[in-house]
Amino acid sequence: MATIKDIASKLGISVSAVSKGLNGASDISEELRQMVLDTAVEMGYSTKRSRKEEHRKLAIFIENMEYENKGDFGFDIILGFKQSAFKHKWDVEVIPVTPAFQLSEKYDTYMLKHGFSGSFVLGFTLHDEWMKQFEHTTTPTVLFDNFISKNPNVSYIGTDNYEGIDLAIEHLANLGHKRIAFLNGSSHSMVSEQRLDAFRLSMVHHGLIVDDKLTAYGYYMAGSAQDHVPAFLDLGATAIMCGNDLIATGVLNECRLRKYDIPKDISVIGFDDIPIASKCNLTTINQDRHELGKCAYVALSAMTHHIAISKTLMRPRLVIRNTTGKLS
Amino acid sequence: MATIKDIASKLGISVSAVSKGLNGASDISEELRQMVLDTAVEMGYSTKRSRKEEHRKLAIFIENMEYENKGDFGFDIILGFKQSAFKHKWDVEVIPVTPAFQLSEKYDTYMLKHGFSGSFVLGFTLHDEWMKQFEHTTTPTVLFDNFISKNPNVSYIGTDNYEGIDLAIEHLANLGHKRIAFLNGSSHSMVSEQRLDAFRLSMVHHGLIVDDKLTAYGYYMAGSAQDHVPAFLDLGATAIMCGNDLIATGVLNECRLRKYDIPKDISVIGFDDIPIASKCNLTTINQDRHELGKCAYVALSAMTHHIAISKTLMRPRLVIRNTTGKLS
Repeated sequence: MATIKDIASKLGISVSAVSKGLNGASDISEELRQMVLDTAVEMGYSTKRSRKEEHRKLAIFIENMEYENKGDFGFDIILGFKQSAFKHKWDVEVIPVTPAFQLSEKYDTYMLKHGFSGSFVLGFTLHDEWMKQFEHTTTPTVLFDNFISKNPNVSYIGTDNYEGIDLAIEHLANLGHKRIAFLNGSSHSMVSEQRLDAFRLSMVHHGLIVDDKLTAYGYYMAGSAQDHVPAFLDLGATAIMCGNDLIATGVLNECRLRKYDIPKDISVIGFDDIPIASKCNLTTINQDRHELGKCAYVALSAMTHHIAISKTLMRPRLVIRNTTGKLS
Repeated sequence: MATIKDIASKLGISVSAVSKGLNGASDISEELRQMVLDTAVEMGYSTKRSRKEEHRKLAIFIENMEYENKGDFGFDIILGFKQSAFKHKWDVEVIPVTPAFQLSEKYDTYMLKHGFSGSFVLGFTLHDEWMKQFEHTTTPTVLFDNFISKNPNVSYIGTDNYEGIDLAIEHLANLGHKRIAFLNGSSHSMVSEQRLDAFRLSMVHHGLIVDDKLTAYGYYMAGSAQDHVPAFLDLGATAIMCGNDLIATGVLNECRLRKYDIPKDISVIGFDDIPIASKCNLTTINQDRHELGKCAYVALSAMTHHIAISKTLMRPRLVIRNTTGKLS
């Protein structure tokens, strides 16, 4: 592991200048500071510094996910993570990010500059800039619903999507449905890709035919329904599996607008079981978001102790309410 | 959840007789006791009883795996599990089992009868009797290298076999090998099946051709090598990936008997990194067995608190020693 002296000799500057750069002193230029930080990260210095006793700060980076209010998908995940982290005397800072922000700051440099020992990352898409950097990061990093292969500093946490989709399809198949549509969330998302794959596998497993005209990528919002539900209904779908609960609420609306009775004429299943699902009496697949947050902390804590947990998957749970019924 | 009264009324016997049966009193017949226990399990009584404060006993069931001596595969796994469990004031009993034993005792009944709150299960094959029972068990159960779908009381812990095999094949491909053989462990094992699947995927991923004549199931012992190595060598294999380190030691022997120089003429990779691997200077894929044991405890403890962790996978690590080299 590189020392301050190594960094100084690589850059041809004094040890004290390096030290100032690392500690954010005000009497060196911003350019020199950035160069010191980038070099320190490159030489593997970050890990050493961030493991000092006085640094007890973790970051939560979040994008493409609502989390500020109690009903939001991310709310309980962040709550669970924070509760576990606080118990072990870590400070936690929640940092909303954008693609532009990721392009402007290198991940490891950002972590070093701000004194974070590790992070929990939520809502990133497959083409986010930092996703590439996670392949080689030396900072302990837990990804919600994303996987990076072969880097022992990165861990994946999520709910088993294959089992979740299979629970839903099994439920619909038991009710006699055969023409099952799948309105997925956004493409460029590992979770969406897994759920589509799981949908195909589960349909085949239950002896049902996958009609490609009955599967579509949308986006993880209610508004996504209007683009696809009319075609699904015209093609004779009797059940619609949705990528999340928000999409499902949109699907319920679109069906009712067209005078389809739920669940007599059509069954609808969501995914996540956020509070709106129980309000709408929606059958859905529950993710235990509070526990996901807690387990994310466990995985992050393990990595800060050099224990490389690759994946932690929680069990999904089928919650049957009033939007699914026997095929009439 | 059933009460003692429910069990008594179902069996048409007194509450005190049920209580005696559950507590192992000596003044009721063995037949009646078994009937009480079976009925209690059937009615979901086990969970309730085993969560009482005074019951702090966990079982480790082990089969088909050496564990008693320091160099054995199971030794560190059990050590890690016990260390974590002892820290949280659990007693742990290691119970070697056989297929006959599993046929003679129902799993949940056994757990209730002996006052175990949960178990860690190692070395079971896919056709073991208890594997069927795990699909519906109400007892928190962690399976090493085995997976049961849709039961929130069962959790799978292991090393990511896909990544492990891919690390090995990537290493061999980088050394220029194309004719890579795979001498797997026993069939009827989830791990063996995963590793074969991983081998095929990784070969394709690296642009290499899978020759079915160069893959074989054997058994997880050195003796397995003599049945397959001669054919692999005749067919022009330049590298042999092995299902574990013991098989690899057998492969090294067979190659040397035939005057093949290692690694000049042929490269050999093991799996596990047990102590014999470093003694033989064997390149292998490391499983962190001590941490696997500790993480198994974490998953079991979570389940006793109704937190359903489905899978925990650890990162494998490529350990390069002297049995792999550039294709000459």
